[in-house]
Amino acid sequence: MQASHPLTVDLYELTMADSYLRRGRNERAVFDLFVRPPVPARRFLIAAGIERALDYLLTLRFSEEDRNYLRSLGVFSDEFLAYLADFRFSGDVWAVREGELVFPGAPLLYVDAPRIEAQIVETYLLNVVNFHTLIASKAARVRLAAGFEASVVDFSPRRDHGPGAALGVAYASYLAGLDGTSNVEAGRRLGIPVVGTMAHAYVMSFASELEAFRAFAADHPAPVLLIDTYDTLEGARRALVVARELREQGRALVGVRIDSGDLPTLTRKVRRIFDEAGFPEIKILISGDLDEYRIQAFLAAGGVADGYGVGTRLGTSYDLPALGGVYKLVEDEAGPHLKKSPGKQTWPGRKQVWRREEEGWIRDVLGLADEAQPGEPLLRPRLRAGRRVAEAEPLESVRERVRTRFASLPEDLRVIAEDPKPTYPLEASPGLLALARRLERARN
Amino acid sequence: MQASHPLTVDLYELTMADSYLRRGRNERAVFDLFVRPPVPARRFLIAAGIERALDYLLTLRFSEEDRNYLRSLGVFSDEFLAYLADFRFSGDVWAVREGELVFPGAPLLYVDAPRIEAQIVETYLLNVVNFHTLIASKAARVRLAAGFEASVVDFSPRRDHGPGAALGVAYASYLAGLDGTSNVEAGRRLGIPVVGTMAHAYVMSFASELEAFRAFAADHPAPVLLIDTYDTLEGARRALVVARELREQGRALVGVRIDSGDLPTLTRKVRRIFDEAGFPEIKILISGDLDEYRIQAFLAAGGVADGYGVGTRLGTSYDLPALGGVYKLVEDEAGPHLKKSPGKQTWPGRKQVWRREEEGWIRDVLGLADEAQPGEPLLRPRLRAGRRVAEAEPLESVRERVRTRFASLPEDLRVIAEDPKPTYPLEASPGLLALARRLERARN
Repeated sequence: MQASHPLTVDLYELTMADSYLRRGRNERAVFDLFVRPPVPARRFLIAAGIERALDYLLTLRFSEEDRNYLRSLGVFSDEFLAYLADFRFSGDVWAVREGELVFPGAPLLYVDAPRIEAQIVETYLLNVVNFHTLIASKAARVRLAAGFEASVVDFSPRRDHGPGAALGVAYASYLAGLDGTSNVEAGRRLGIPVVGTMAHAYVMSFASELEAFRAFAADHPAPVLLIDTYDTLEGARRALVVARELREQGRALVGVRIDSGDLPTLTRKVRRIFDEAGFPEIKILISGDLDEYRIQAFLAAGGVADGYGVGTRLGTSYDLPALGGVYKLVEDEAGPHLKKSPGKQTWPGRKQVWRREEEGWIRDVLGLADEAQPGEPLLRPRLRAGRRVAEAEPLESVRERVRTRFASLPEDLRVIAEDPKPTYPLEASPGLLALARRLERARN
Repeated sequence: MQASHPLTVDLYELTMADSYLRRGRNERAVFDLFVRPPVPARRFLIAAGIERALDYLLTLRFSEEDRNYLRSLGVFSDEFLAYLADFRFSGDVWAVREGELVFPGAPLLYVDAPRIEAQIVETYLLNVVNFHTLIASKAARVRLAAGFEASVVDFSPRRDHGPGAALGVAYASYLAGLDGTSNVEAGRRLGIPVVGTMAHAYVMSFASELEAFRAFAADHPAPVLLIDTYDTLEGARRALVVARELREQGRALVGVRIDSGDLPTLTRKVRRIFDEAGFPEIKILISGDLDEYRIQAFLAAGGVADGYGVGTRLGTSYDLPALGGVYKLVEDEAGPHLKKSPGKQTWPGRKQVWRREEEGWIRDVLGLADEAQPGEPLLRPRLRAGRRVAEAEPLESVRERVRTRFASLPEDLRVIAEDPKPTYPLEASPGLLALARRLERARN
C-alpha cells in the first residue's frame, strides 16, 4: 500500500473544510470524479489509479507534524486542527474496476461522505486518477498500434516527471498491456518484468564494436545488442559473428536493437541478413521516440520488428500530457445539484453507468443510481463506511482483464488516427435527462 | 535532502556496469548531461534539479534488500553484487548553478568518475534534471508573459504526474519566479508560500452565492471569493456587498477569482465595478487553463488582472511535455570521444561554458575545459571525490538570482511566440572545433 500524502492537497480544500466545520455543515455530499469530453485523440480511456486512490482514503491521517505546519499558516481554527487530529475517512466510494475501459463523461468514481471528508480528498484523488488513467490510456493505444504479438516495453524513466512518475508510468502501462519496463524500481516494488539491452556508451567504450558485442554476450545470459552506434548494417553483420560464436557454445543471441535511422528499411535489411544466415530466431527491437503514431507508420512502411521500446512519448503522454479529470458536487442534503456553464456540464445526482455490449459494439448509459437499466453496472461499491468492501485485485489479474477486453474491442475504438474531437458511445438515461431538465427549470 | 532511489535506474545501466566490472574496465570516464537543440518554443532553459541530482549522488547506496532483488533477476554476477554493497559515488561533478539560464547544447553538468559509477547514475540524473528544468523553463515563460508586478501561483497539483511531480512542479516554478503554490506539501517541505481561494462546490453548497461569500469571509482571515459560479458580474456585485461589510468591521476583502468566460471583458467590467464603488484595492485573480500564450493574449485583449493561478499547462509543460536531455560519454582513458550521427552531435572532451554578456546581449562559448576563454565560466566544481565542494544554496537565494537574471534579460530572449526551431547564442570555441575535426579525420 502506498504511503498517504496528507498535505498533497490544495490549500483551499482545507480552508473550505474549516469553514464547513465551523458552520456545522458536515452533512453527506456526493462528488463525481469524471473526465470532461471530448478528450483529443482518445477514443476511450483505461481507468487507473483507482486502487491507489482507495489506499489513500484508507490511510489518510494528519500527524502532529502535519497539524503543526497547518497551524503555522495562521488561517485555521483550533477546532479544525482538532478535527484533523482524529480524521478518518468514513465515507463510501463507488468506482469502476482498475483497468476498466471507460468513456469521458461517465464517473470513474464517486465519493459519498460527510462533506468535509469528501472535499479534502479532491486534490489527491484527481492527481492519482488523472495521471495513471492518462498513462494507461496512452499505453493502450501503443499496444493497439503494435499488435498483440509484439513485445512492447516502457523505456521512459529518464524523461518522466520525476522518479515517482516513472514508477507510475511503469505501473499504468503494464496494467494496460505492455510487457515490461526498464525501471528496476518498478520490478522490485510491483513485480513488473524488467528488461534492458545496452547503450551506445558501452559500445563506444571498447576499441571496436565487435569487441563490445563479444564482451556483452559473454557477460550477459540473454544478450540483446545495440547495432546502430556506427553503421547499422555493419552492426548487424558483427552481431551475426557473435550469434555464430554463441551458437557454437550452445547459447543464443536473443536480439538486436536499432535506435535511429530509417527504421522500416533498416529492419527489413537486418531481418534479411539474419534470416539468410540461418538465424530467424534473432529478434529485432526498435526504439527512439516511438509512440502509437510512429509504430503505425513504421508498420505501414513495411517495417518488421519483434519488439518496441517506448519512452518519452509514452511516459509523458506526449500528444496529450494531461487529462481533464474533475471532481464535482452532484448531490447533498439539499438534493441533486446541476451545474451548467457553456461547454461544461455536470450531471446531477448519484449515478450509475450501465454497459451494453455485443460483438462489434459497446454502448454505455449514464443514469441515476436507483434507475433499473439493462446492462452491466460499471460502478461498484469499493469502500463502505471507510472500509474496503473487498481486497484490491492483484495487478496480474487486472492486466489479464484488460487483455481480454482488447480481444473483443470494437473496430471503431481501435482507430489510432488523431481526432481532436472524438465522440463516445455514452448516453444519458431518460431518468437523468428528466432530472436535469427539472433542475434547470427550477433555477430559471 | 531527498531520499535516494537506488533502483530508479534502467536495467541496462546495471548490466553494462556488471560487464565493466568483470573486465576491470573501471577507468575514469566523463559524461556530459545536455539538452539537444533546438527545443521547440524555448528560447532558453532554466537549469533545475541540479541540487537534487547532487543529493542523489551523495546518498546513493544499495541496501541488502536492493541487492537481493537484483540477485533474484538472475543476470548479475556475485562480484557485481558485492561491489554494490560497498558502493559510494567517488567522482567529481561540475555543474551550472541551480536556476542558471542556459542554452540547449551546452552541458548542464558533467560527471567525471570511475566508469561504473558514472554509468549507473545516468537514469536518475536525467530524470530529475530533465523534469525540473522542463518545469522551471516553462514557469519562466509564464512569469515573462505575466510581467513582474503580477502575482503568479502554481495551481497544478490535480493534473501533475503524481504527488511527487506536484512537489517538483511547485519547487521548480517557485525557483523560476512564481510567487507560491496551492500545494500544502510544498509549503511544508520546501517553505514555499501556499495560497488558495475557494471552489465552486463551496458556493454551491450554500443556498445563495451571497450567503457563501459572507460565510467564507467570516471564516477566513484573508478572503478571496470565487465569483463565476453563476453570473460573474452579479458575483462581483455580491462580493462588493461583502467588501462593504468587511470594511465596516475594519477588515478587507483581499480579492476575487474568475475561472471562466471572456476573461479580458469580464476583468475590465469587474475592475470598473470595484473601482467605481471605491474599492480599487480588491485584487482580481484569474485562472482556468492559463499558460504564457493565454496570459499574453489576455493582456493584448486589454484584460486587467493582479494575479494568475496557473495549473495544468504549467505543471505538465503542456506545449512541450518532455525535455530531450541526454547523457553522453565524451572522454575516457582512450581520450576524447566524438559521436556524430545525422542531427545528433556530441562534442568531445571535458568542457567549459563561458558566458559573455553586456546589456542587450548574451553569448555563450562552449570550449575545452583547459582553454583560456574570456567570460564567466558557468560550470563550477560541485562534487570533488564524492563530497560537496560547498553547501547547497538556499532556495530563496536561487530564486533571487533568477529574479535578478530576468531584470537584465535581452529582448530577444523574452519573446513568447511559439517557435519550432529557435536558435541559441551558443558557439563552439576554436579549440573544440579543432578537436572535433581531428577526431573526425582520425575515424575516416
